[in-house]
Amino acid sequence: MKNYLEMTAKELANEKEILEKRYAEKKSLGLKLDISRGKPCSEQLALSLPMLDLVNSKTENFKCENGFDIRNYGVVDGIPECRRLFGEILDAPMENVIVTGNSSLNLFYDLVAHAMCHGLPGGSAPWCECKNRKLLCPAPGYDRHFAVGELFGFELITVNMNPDGPDMDAVEELIKDESVKGIICVPKYSNPQGISYSAKVVERFAKLSPAAADFRIFWDNAYAVHHLDFDGDMDEIPSLLRLAEENGRGDMVYMLGSTSKITFPTAGLAAVASSAANTADLKRMLSFQNIGPDKINQMRHVLFFKNAEGVLAHMKKQAEIVRPKFNTVLGVLKEELAESGIAKWNTPKGGYFVSAELMPGTAKRTVALCKEAGLVLTGAGAVYPYGKDPEDSILRIAPTFAPAVDLPAAMEIFCISAKLAAIEKLDV
Amino acid sequence: MKNYLEMTAKELANEKEILEKRYAEKKSLGLKLDISRGKPCSEQLALSLPMLDLVNSKTENFKCENGFDIRNYGVVDGIPECRRLFGEILDAPMENVIVTGNSSLNLFYDLVAHAMCHGLPGGSAPWCECKNRKLLCPAPGYDRHFAVGELFGFELITVNMNPDGPDMDAVEELIKDESVKGIICVPKYSNPQGISYSAKVVERFAKLSPAAADFRIFWDNAYAVHHLDFDGDMDEIPSLLRLAEENGRGDMVYMLGSTSKITFPTAGLAAVASSAANTADLKRMLSFQNIGPDKINQMRHVLFFKNAEGVLAHMKKQAEIVRPKFNTVLGVLKEELAESGIAKWNTPKGGYFVSAELMPGTAKRTVALCKEAGLVLTGAGAVYPYGKDPEDSILRIAPTFAPAVDLPAAMEIFCISAKLAAIEKLDV
Repeated sequence: MKNYLEMTAKELANEKEILEKRYAEKKSLGLKLDISRGKPCSEQLALSLPMLDLVNSKTENFKCENGFDIRNYGVVDGIPECRRLFGEILDAPMENVIVTGNSSLNLFYDLVAHAMCHGLPGGSAPWCECKNRKLLCPAPGYDRHFAVGELFGFELITVNMNPDGPDMDAVEELIKDESVKGIICVPKYSNPQGISYSAKVVERFAKLSPAAADFRIFWDNAYAVHHLDFDGDMDEIPSLLRLAEENGRGDMVYMLGSTSKITFPTAGLAAVASSAANTADLKRMLSFQNIGPDKINQMRHVLFFKNAEGVLAHMKKQAEIVRPKFNTVLGVLKEELAESGIAKWNTPKGGYFVSAELMPGTAKRTVALCKEAGLVLTGAGAVYPYGKDPEDSILRIAPTFAPAVDLPAAMEIFCISAKLAAIEKLDV
Repeated sequence: MKNYLEMTAKELANEKEILEKRYAEKKSLGLKLDISRGKPCSEQLALSLPMLDLVNSKTENFKCENGFDIRNYGVVDGIPECRRLFGEILDAPMENVIVTGNSSLNLFYDLVAHAMCHGLPGGSAPWCECKNRKLLCPAPGYDRHFAVGELFGFELITVNMNPDGPDMDAVEELIKDESVKGIICVPKYSNPQGISYSAKVVERFAKLSPAAADFRIFWDNAYAVHHLDFDGDMDEIPSLLRLAEENGRGDMVYMLGSTSKITFPTAGLAAVASSAANTADLKRMLSFQNIGPDKINQMRHVLFFKNAEGVLAHMKKQAEIVRPKFNTVLGVLKEELAESGIAKWNTPKGGYFVSAELMPGTAKRTVALCKEAGLVLTGAGAVYPYGKDPEDSILRIAPTFAPAVDLPAAMEIFCISAKLAAIEKLDV
């Protein structure tokens, strides 16, 4: 295969003919494939099923460490043993951890709603009073994060992603504006590029000196333990909270996490680690909002994992299921596109996604072609604020949920579509 | 025993001496009793334990009715079979029911936060832009409801409670002010008086014609199935949503409920029933906030109860545990206070509380005396907005959580303290 960009018009026409034939063949199969969302597959979920048996009608002791009955009201910040577990996962002291709810997205939403309505420690007014409020959005990023920012009336400011994390020069410049209230990050195995922020980048985050006294870093460490190869190369990042505390800036940080992709999405747990002042503020907010989280589910998780080591052993089993799927995706991408000159992609060491950078102006067309042939992708643009990819080039591939047997066909359709879209573009 | 109000000074002095002796005796026992919060007791909780076994590692089918895997993401409004169950409990069509989260208090909080930040169907602006916003608070009422209103910056307007519900003349007058954005009600077996709103009162609610187009009735039907005597006298109230829809005013209504006091507080389920427009609005909000509720816990509840009949059969068993406790409380109140002329109380047919109306100006003193003798009560004033009981006379008694064996002593301390406080007052 030659580089498309070096082909003659005739060669391109030939290639197009071949691709159109392959495309028609695939389409005729009437497939229904979906690599759009980062969801665990049944085999991954099955690994957590024994957890459901651990608190049951024969359980004799329902007391958690601080003496409360896990079946009754109370313990608004989560049972101590579960705060300890999340402290280990998030790399934060358990006193600074609150375990509540079932998703880090929901925690982010609630934190923003709280800031909007009541304001945050260090601030002088609720965020809703800052009419031109802005949220920094490293992109490509997570569409649902951007959507929350937009819903709450923030102007979303794109910050470019470098291979070692967000462009920190840009961040340091942008936070001089006191209407910039926060930044939303996925610091490890980022969605969608699988980038882990370098120690240097995390240190620069910890030293930020924003104009807004109530500026916040929402650090959604959703893939903290989601390595793909536990016997190989794994990324680790420093604890932002710890570093920020050392600089006297702990109030700037909310570190979020969940077990959505460790145990069960929506039936898992979520947690937030923050400074003493923020933790006290959140506990106060929670004391109005509810009378405690689902402590039975917290106890299930504690009994199942015991500690971070137990979580890692569990995630290693998940990696065995998931890694071959990533390898299939990467294998087909390489075979079909490596020499084409029209696509680049990352080789993630963890997380849930492969991000492909196609020829500018072809992402939307590729999604449409895939759809016509029976393959659902995340919409083009979704990884950018307002759903607008300035280059129309980035597409997100989620390999985990689809059955392994479907992935070769799905990726073939993806690659054929990307190539067809590129040739259409070159052909003009 | 004679009526205190008819006693001579000498008789009062004698009575006081007797009471002080009894008080000292009780105090010397060093008891630690608590009738402050409406919490189920261990025996009640034990009735729900078999539910924990119903979804387990041997379960073969994790699909809910609409084909989604309950272990994975999705179904933001709750699994259909659980929406049907809550539809029966709340008396609303299942299409209008959303099951999410673990407490109706949290739903109320989230609805207010949503209204504050984004506005509601029918409204022209987020509530945060209404600077002098007001919330109507039938009182005596639930302290945590009032606290949420205060947290979000509402002026809390007290509406007096009549034996058949809130003073509707006052409500109809107050809602002519367009800064009155809502009213928060516990319409059945109210907290703390155990009052069930009459059909006439519910009808007047359904016909309200508020000045604010986005006025809302938050109808926290927390005790919908919490009868005390399933073979005796039970209250039923009409469905506010149904009546309001008949009047074309369905958008005015959020009916809330939970299984906090049916299965497990904090490990139960909550639901909201509302109009089509409100339901669509809430589903949209939830689609930003999270990627689905805990569907495994929803399935547990469905398998355990099957339908509303199953819920009622379960609540009948709870009533058997709880009714004797209420009878103890009412028995001691009668024995100690019936003829004193210094106290009145309700005889509830359901719910979680007995509300005592003491001699004006003695509630705080009674709480202090109880505390000194080892009995914790809800703070005086808690049942009124801002914690301020205008008469300093209402105290809430929660009989369920304390062991049955402790209740006679607790209630004796309560009555002795109330009588001492009254004599101190009369003595001036």
